[in-house]
Amino acid sequence: MEVGFLGLGIMGKAMSMNLLKNGFKVTVWNRTLSKCNELVAHGASIGKTPAEVINKCTITIAMLSDPAAALSVVLDKDGVLEQICGGKGYIDMSTVDPETSCKINEAITSKGGRFLEAPVSGSKQPAETGQLVILAAGDKALYEAAIPAFDILGKKSFFLGQVGNGAKMKLVVNMIMGSMMNAFSEGLTLADRSGLNPHDLLDVLDLGAIANPMFKGKGPAMLQNNYSPAFPLKHQQKDMRLALALGDENSVPMPVAAASNEVFLFFQSLLAVFTRPLLDKDTCPQLECLILFL
Amino acid sequence: MEVGFLGLGIMGKAMSMNLLKNGFKVTVWNRTLSKCNELVAHGASIGKTPAEVINKCTITIAMLSDPAAALSVVLDKDGVLEQICGGKGYIDMSTVDPETSCKINEAITSKGGRFLEAPVSGSKQPAETGQLVILAAGDKALYEAAIPAFDILGKKSFFLGQVGNGAKMKLVVNMIMGSMMNAFSEGLTLADRSGLNPHDLLDVLDLGAIANPMFKGKGPAMLQNNYSPAFPLKHQQKDMRLALALGDENSVPMPVAAASNEVFLFFQSLLAVFTRPLLDKDTCPQLECLILFL
Amino acid sequence: MEVGFLGLGIMGKAMSMNLLKNGFKVTVWNRTLSKCNELVAHGASIGKTPAEVINKCTITIAMLSDPAAALSVVLDKDGVLEQICGGKGYIDMSTVDPETSCKINEAITSKGGRFLEAPVSGSKQPAETGQLVILAAGDKALYEAAIPAFDILGKKSFFLGQVGNGAKMKLVVNMIMGSMMNAFSEGLTLADRSGLNPHDLLDVLDLGAIANPMFKGKGPAMLQNNYSPAFPLKHQQKDMRLALALGDENSVPMPVAAASNEVFLFFQSLLAVFTRPLLDKDTCPQLECLILFL
Amino acid sequence: MEVGFLGLGIMGKAMSMNLLKNGFKVTVWNRTLSKCNELVAHGASIGKTPAEVINKCTITIAMLSDPAAALSVVLDKDGVLEQICGGKGYIDMSTVDPETSCKINEAITSKGGRFLEAPVSGSKQPAETGQLVILAAGDKALYEAAIPAFDILGKKSFFLGQVGNGAKMKLVVNMIMGSMMNAFSEGLTLADRSGLNPHDLLDVLDLGAIANPMFKGKGPAMLQNNYSPAFPLKHQQKDMRLALALGDENSVPMPVAAASNEVFLFFQSLLAVFTRPLLDKDTCPQLECLILFL
Repeated sequence: MEVGFLGLGIMGKAMSMNLLKNGFKVTVWNRTLSKCNELVAHGASIGKTPAEVINKCTITIAMLSDPAAALSVVLDKDGVLEQICGGKGYIDMSTVDPETSCKINEAITSKGGRFLEAPVSGSKQPAETGQLVILAAGDKALYEAAIPAFDILGKKSFFLGQVGNGAKMKLVVNMIMGSMMNAFSEGLTLADRSGLNPHDLLDVLDLGAIANPMFKGKGPAMLQNNYSPAFPLKHQQKDMRLALALGDENSVPMPVAAASNEVFLFFQSLLAVFTRPLLDKDTCPQLECLILFL
Repeated sequence: MEVGFLGLGIMGKAMSMNLLKNGFKVTVWNRTLSKCNELVAHGASIGKTPAEVINKCTITIAMLSDPAAALSVVLDKDGVLEQICGGKGYIDMSTVDPETSCKINEAITSKGGRFLEAPVSGSKQPAETGQLVILAAGDKALYEAAIPAFDILGKKSFFLGQVGNGAKMKLVVNMIMGSMMNAFSEGLTLADRSGLNPHDLLDVLDLGAIANPMFKGKGPAMLQNNYSPAFPLKHQQKDMRLALALGDENSVPMPVAAASNEVFLFFQSLLAVFTRPLLDKDTCPQLECLILFL
Repeated sequence: MEVGFLGLGIMGKAMSMNLLKNGFKVTVWNRTLSKCNELVAHGASIGKTPAEVINKCTITIAMLSDPAAALSVVLDKDGVLEQICGGKGYIDMSTVDPETSCKINEAITSKGGRFLEAPVSGSKQPAETGQLVILAAGDKALYEAAIPAFDILGKKSFFLGQVGNGAKMKLVVNMIMGSMMNAFSEGLTLADRSGLNPHDLLDVLDLGAIANPMFKGKGPAMLQNNYSPAFPLKHQQKDMRLALALGDENSVPMPVAAASNEVFLFFQSLLAVFTRPLLDKDTCPQLECLILFL
Repeated sequence: MEVGFLGLGIMGKAMSMNLLKNGFKVTVWNRTLSKCNELVAHGASIGKTPAEVINKCTITIAMLSDPAAALSVVLDKDGVLEQICGGKGYIDMSTVDPETSCKINEAITSKGGRFLEAPVSGSKQPAETGQLVILAAGDKALYEAAIPAFDILGKKSFFLGQVGNGAKMKLVVNMIMGSMMNAFSEGLTLADRSGLNPHDLLDVLDLGAIANPMFKGKGPAMLQNNYSPAFPLKHQQKDMRLALALGDENSVPMPVAAASNEVFLFFQSLLAVFTRPLLDKDTCPQLECLILFL
């Protein structure tokens, strides 16, 4: 099978390499073309522009850094839109908001092309090992045609219906995750302040019904003052806010998510005022806990 | 090794049977003595009163239904207190509040006895298979002496420090669990109302960083209108309230737990007014979700 | 002084009548022209279209029912825009969102006209008695030119800076009001359930530092099951949501407003499911209290 | 009419002076007896102990600093209890929790005496001008006998039923006040951050349906960085917590009060870590606003 691949950042490079190693013929493009070299060494062809890749391939996958890049690759000069047409499919696996997805969908389908949004859950390591979770939505026939590729890229793919549903699913998951992170932080702080050893709490949690990889992975780092950020606070807060807006539109009361959002805003606000050395771990552990989101 | 065992309810019977089957000599007592028969058939001795069991054994374990029963077995006529003395240990594995634990501790230690609170995480099945998680606190030497028994009863035991810490640890865990349950319910409802299939959400969650046995176990039942209660709403709300009170004492802000507590109160309040047939699944799924706590 | 006046609904009719009675020359227009008759009887002239009024008057005031009407009067055929030009001023006193205000502002100023948004606080009775509070923003010179009219229409006018600030000020006030209404409802319910007479609470509140006309006016009605709506729940919730969005944009944590918004959403959600006769006052007074918003 | 008066602090001195000036015969006692001199100069008699005052007077009023003092005056040697008996009444106007009130009530009534709790709303100035609001509960006949005194001490007195209701009424009022203070602080901050002048907000509020003395009094100080505390944060938080506990007992959901309580806890927590000079008004006005409670 032959596919195009636009965008060779950390994720895109790992994903296109997986396709190559599993027998796909891949034509790659990247804004900085030199990043294509390693893939060419493994047998990839190069397209000089997104348009050229689309022209050459029946199905093209994109994995770009943000909504602006996702729109630019489609709409700008030498972009996807110049060559997309009936019989060709375009799959955007970037993480973008539902509106951006819908804009791209309109542009592609107005030219007769097929479109699938397919954001993923999982980052660098799952991308390298083909263990992503793929949240696809849009053109069902294109989804089915892409299954052989998805089977290589991920451990599981979902078809979620109309365009926008992939982005929504990520919002819902991130909303639950944000509230859980707050509940976890509150629990660690309460344990610490009320005379329990929070390391014992981590062990007890890990043996019970709410054991999960996030608590197991984040917990020890939080207790060791490890400030290395995995998911930045401002992104978490943005997703929380978008999920709450989605709830407002659909008249869904979500008081726990709303309280979580306010906590994130509080800490954003504090971080604008205080620098870390001012924080005193002994008297304010929760602040520490939540700052670990940074 | 020889131990006494007071209380042969669902949990106590399974636990004492495990001890017997693993070579312990066990002297049992139960308020309704006939419940001892099955254990006697497997080799147990009978004590006619708690005092008689204490008199006979160096270490006695209790597994009683509630704080009132836990106090009564110690303080009433023919109770533990009449025979406890230096050299003897008493281990209460019932789930009680920190105050009850402390009262029992004072009574036992005032007679020279050793005391350990050791509430468990896990219910019938883990009790039968020796897979409980044991949250012990109090007399360290007694804890160490009891390890051979704990190794049979549970998959893991913790020594958490002073009496009351076992009860506190359960509160902290149940607080995190309650907030997670709310976050989960909000997510399922938001998915449903915003046009996603909530079954897809369950599958996506189960493949990611926040996958946990509770979501996996409760999720499908919630979506199938299964009202069979595992952990009653009023117990969950009571634990949430006690955890918030512990936070207030220690000046720990816990806005997400506070919002969760209010949701539980809201639903308690609604359930006092409405009967289930009035609920309309299509328009009010979150209500459904939360009522599943019942 | 001569002014134009567009829109003779309940508010507009009372306001233009006040101007007439205080010696202004007023040219009126209304979509249904027959509504102009009463004003003509008191000395007003008629303009057949908004454009005609603008053409005739240096300053024209509008008081329209909603954002759609406010936009239509300006942008449609025979609208304000056809005649507005340098030297003329247009004052929109309708209640609209900041975006609508900004759109109208752009249209007017692109033709060289001056624009002032000037939403009011107060409804029918204050309009009749000239006791409105006027929240003006936009062109400062136009504000100053309009002061003689504002002095007749209202007890106080404010100049709040750039266009949009009038609408924002209303949002902030309505946000505080919504949280206060919730606090009040919680207090009345708590009083009732904990054995106090809520009528006593009303009297005590009215004698203290938080006494205010809203508690005094709404309280007795709430306790007498008076369901007549003054400010509909869905409008209150919409303003709360817009205020929270404004807070999100500016990184202002507002946990009390967020909790209030969720309460409004909860009750909206419940009202979609239940009809009033199902409610049982004795067991669920807070529900009663909040439904009074309807 | 003759009354005893125990406790001549700021409040008690002003109150007993008012009684004297209005023709009452007053026998006073204070722990530091020298504080009685000024009252003696205006015609008061002195009792050397609380017991002596009770012995001499049919009705004795107490105005003490806190629950500990209130209990001590009744229960200690030479205390109220030694002389109270059938036919005598004791009125405690101190601010205490419901439990303390109930303890004093039991002690007094077990000796045949009558008891009334009568905490007041209002501080120094209303005490001096006889403008207190009196929240009485307990013995109805004693309340009626005390009306001539209450008419001098306060602008209004309430009889609220059984002992404890006076204390509860104060909690409910303070809970509403605390949520309003948060709503107000959020509104001021939102105004400031979104480009409005918060002084304009104060003016607009003061002209509308939610105008109240607290906003009018506190608002300008909050905007001028005036840190002089009227009602300390920790007292406000304690009352909020007690009100929430009362709600929990009675199954009343109060999400707005719960969110307010968490805000108070957050700021308590922050104040333990940071000293004021670290705060930067320009970037963190809400923190400023809430710290004004201190």
